[in-house]
Amino acid sequence: MWWEAKLMRTFRVRNQQKAGVLGRLLSVIGDAGGFIGEIKTVRMGSTSIVRDIVVFANDRNHLDRLVQLVESTPDVELLEVRDEVMEMHQGGKIAVRSRYRISTLSELRRVYTPGVAEVCQKIRENPQLARRFTAISHLVAIVTDGSAVLGLGDIGPLAAMPVMEGKATLMETFVGLSGMPILLDTKDPDEIVRSVVHIAPTFAAIQLEDISAPRCFEIEEKLQAQLDKPVMHDDQHGTAVVVLATLLNATRNLERSLNRCKIGQIGLGAAGLAIARMLMHYTGNPVLGTDLSAGALERLAKAGGRPSTLDEILQTCDVVIATTGAPGLIPPEKVRRGQIILALSNPYPEIEPEEALKAGAAFAADGKMVNNLLGFPGILRGAVDANVPRISPEMYIAAAETIAECTRPGELVPNPLDREVHWRVSRSVARKALEQGLARENLNGYFEKPFEAGAP
Amino acid sequence: MWWEAKLMRTFRVRNQQKAGVLGRLLSVIGDAGGFIGEIKTVRMGSTSIVRDIVVFANDRNHLDRLVQLVESTPDVELLEVRDEVMEMHQGGKIAVRSRYRISTLSELRRVYTPGVAEVCQKIRENPQLARRFTAISHLVAIVTDGSAVLGLGDIGPLAAMPVMEGKATLMETFVGLSGMPILLDTKDPDEIVRSVVHIAPTFAAIQLEDISAPRCFEIEEKLQAQLDKPVMHDDQHGTAVVVLATLLNATRNLERSLNRCKIGQIGLGAAGLAIARMLMHYTGNPVLGTDLSAGALERLAKAGGRPSTLDEILQTCDVVIATTGAPGLIPPEKVRRGQIILALSNPYPEIEPEEALKAGAAFAADGKMVNNLLGFPGILRGAVDANVPRISPEMYIAAAETIAECTRPGELVPNPLDREVHWRVSRSVARKALEQGLARENLNGYFEKPFEAGAP
Repeated sequence: MWWEAKLMRTFRVRNQQKAGVLGRLLSVIGDAGGFIGEIKTVRMGSTSIVRDIVVFANDRNHLDRLVQLVESTPDVELLEVRDEVMEMHQGGKIAVRSRYRISTLSELRRVYTPGVAEVCQKIRENPQLARRFTAISHLVAIVTDGSAVLGLGDIGPLAAMPVMEGKATLMETFVGLSGMPILLDTKDPDEIVRSVVHIAPTFAAIQLEDISAPRCFEIEEKLQAQLDKPVMHDDQHGTAVVVLATLLNATRNLERSLNRCKIGQIGLGAAGLAIARMLMHYTGNPVLGTDLSAGALERLAKAGGRPSTLDEILQTCDVVIATTGAPGLIPPEKVRRGQIILALSNPYPEIEPEEALKAGAAFAADGKMVNNLLGFPGILRGAVDANVPRISPEMYIAAAETIAECTRPGELVPNPLDREVHWRVSRSVARKALEQGLARENLNGYFEKPFEAGAP
Repeated sequence: MWWEAKLMRTFRVRNQQKAGVLGRLLSVIGDAGGFIGEIKTVRMGSTSIVRDIVVFANDRNHLDRLVQLVESTPDVELLEVRDEVMEMHQGGKIAVRSRYRISTLSELRRVYTPGVAEVCQKIRENPQLARRFTAISHLVAIVTDGSAVLGLGDIGPLAAMPVMEGKATLMETFVGLSGMPILLDTKDPDEIVRSVVHIAPTFAAIQLEDISAPRCFEIEEKLQAQLDKPVMHDDQHGTAVVVLATLLNATRNLERSLNRCKIGQIGLGAAGLAIARMLMHYTGNPVLGTDLSAGALERLAKAGGRPSTLDEILQTCDVVIATTGAPGLIPPEKVRRGQIILALSNPYPEIEPEEALKAGAAFAADGKMVNNLLGFPGILRGAVDANVPRISPEMYIAAAETIAECTRPGELVPNPLDREVHWRVSRSVARKALEQGLARENLNGYFEKPFEAGAP
């Protein structure tokens, strides 16, 4: 997202009780390029008000400048600059917890020996029971080598951990899955596949995360071929699902049919190729695509797409999606009237949405408007609950359609904090699995079960 | 432990309000070979009392017989036989939880993007910070291939999961570590080492669990050689620590010095060899040992021990420890007056402690009296907190001495549910690490920090 590379700080300020002080302060920050987050009132005095203002800066120099500017704003006293994010990260954001309190011998005998032995024996006699009587039923590995993290690139596995923990917190919060980060010390695809296969009995599903292209394609494919459980690279399929949902909403609002749109994909990395594939699957038509890498074009052709050029795509396509990492790649003068443009690169898009609209686009969005968080929790929950051997393209499409259906008038996509959206996504994925004969779990009552928050 | 192979059920009975009914009922169960656990009063009526009685049976036939006997006991009505253990295991015993609630965009921005990016960058610049700002600081892998689980043997990784989850619940409960089971689909030592090394960045320490000998020796050694963090095979070192603590208590009570005792070890599997090694390290004297496997005798000799025979050990040793899996191996007539005998095989010891005492032993114990749970939580907590590259024999010995010191008069070992014992074990291990120059964490204030229960 646009702000991925930014610093987030909480400024505690004491403003004089006068009209216009807060507005002036925010203008000072905004005019210097700082973005404003939440504003909370901490204390109201008779002559002053203390507030916490969340401020986003581009880098440390920028932050220093913002601090100086705030300090020299009249009627404003800067009391403190806090780094609440670092404070929250002390000790990490996740923990493995016991679901039971153990304070008596009686409890110990139930969760551990001797009680546990019979559970072990029952699972040995019927391995299917592991899904019912162990945490495997809700454990999802979040696997990364740290090679393509956010907009930060190849920062390695340790530095990727806060993102993996973030994903795990979201999994628990929105769908009650137990996400467990798995950090890999190797970038070799075969070694990664081998290791993940060896530890796979622990998990109901494998989520690949922030692994760079083209290795991510090979890794996902080989893993899925060897494992009888869902393997999902979020950067590919999670992104593609949310992009498809966005396009379904955009075309519906414009009263067009996505099936009749000519679609062009600029940039065929992990997200780009997955988007092209999913759109081809959905529409049945080839997608035009371009990339600087010959290998990427080959992969597109193999998937049924048509290698093309930037110019041809801009000149002939009704829908243009860009995932290149090249800010400003699309000049406004090349935008065609009525085009739908998704310029998804972060932190800076290929064309700013406002510019694209001014140049005649009928619809334009950038990466910060398309939130991955809408996809992966519900998709994984549905796949795990249905106990599928893999997630089919149709299951991903069902998720996208559900996200589109959950969108309220005036919204581009639904609010990702709305748990009911995740609940509905999970049900649509499981229902599709059932239709396709991929569900191996008895889903009687599953679709009627009301939404339950959180953890198992 | 003796009851590892038993079934545990809760009998709900309604007894007539008459003197002697409960006693008669328990005698009926006991006379038929059933063991009694907790007894809880559920309801008191004017003419009857409803109680829950936990009953241990040897197998399903035995359980059926006990049910019939209870049903035909006068003045007793059997209302229900419940399998509370299986009920508790539904969905497993652990979950990965978020340490923060996420219900607003502001919270989302702190645990996930954009806030998280700065944490990632800081760790990238200084990887040491991962210990402070991620869950790696408290994550411990509990690794098994399921080849030697409890008394059940090679039941495979899935069936081993309830035991691994049990260990994880104990880690959180007693020392606040996040234990994460890792189930392996391979039994090949090199493949195991390779996979665990690849995923090791995720964890502060690796606990090996229920891996059969002799593979466990090779796996632990190779892993520790490749990893700059503690690797501990609990079945070896955890057991050896608790055995040493038991012997320290026994010799203290008998006013003898362990250093002057001649020690013999019968059975040189994972636990047996580790016990022999630790006792040699502690006393400085060679331990006599015997085993049916030539490889095991070689390993003993390499470790400085002296291969011997069962007869020689029984005839000449002051302390005899047996870990053979062979019930009744030690005939009472071979017990020497004043011997200390630990017959540790489960479920049936090499000689029953009462028999050994009757035959003249000064002290005797079996496996159910020596609880591993006393060792691993505190040892790992101390090692992780001190950030040691490995756990030294001296650190294990410090743990054993602390367990011995925590033992109250009349007890063989301390109550494993006493959290303060675990706290003291962790401190003694960290203190020894500091003395040996193995601690890489600043431990200022660590030893004064009062005991805190539970999770991070």
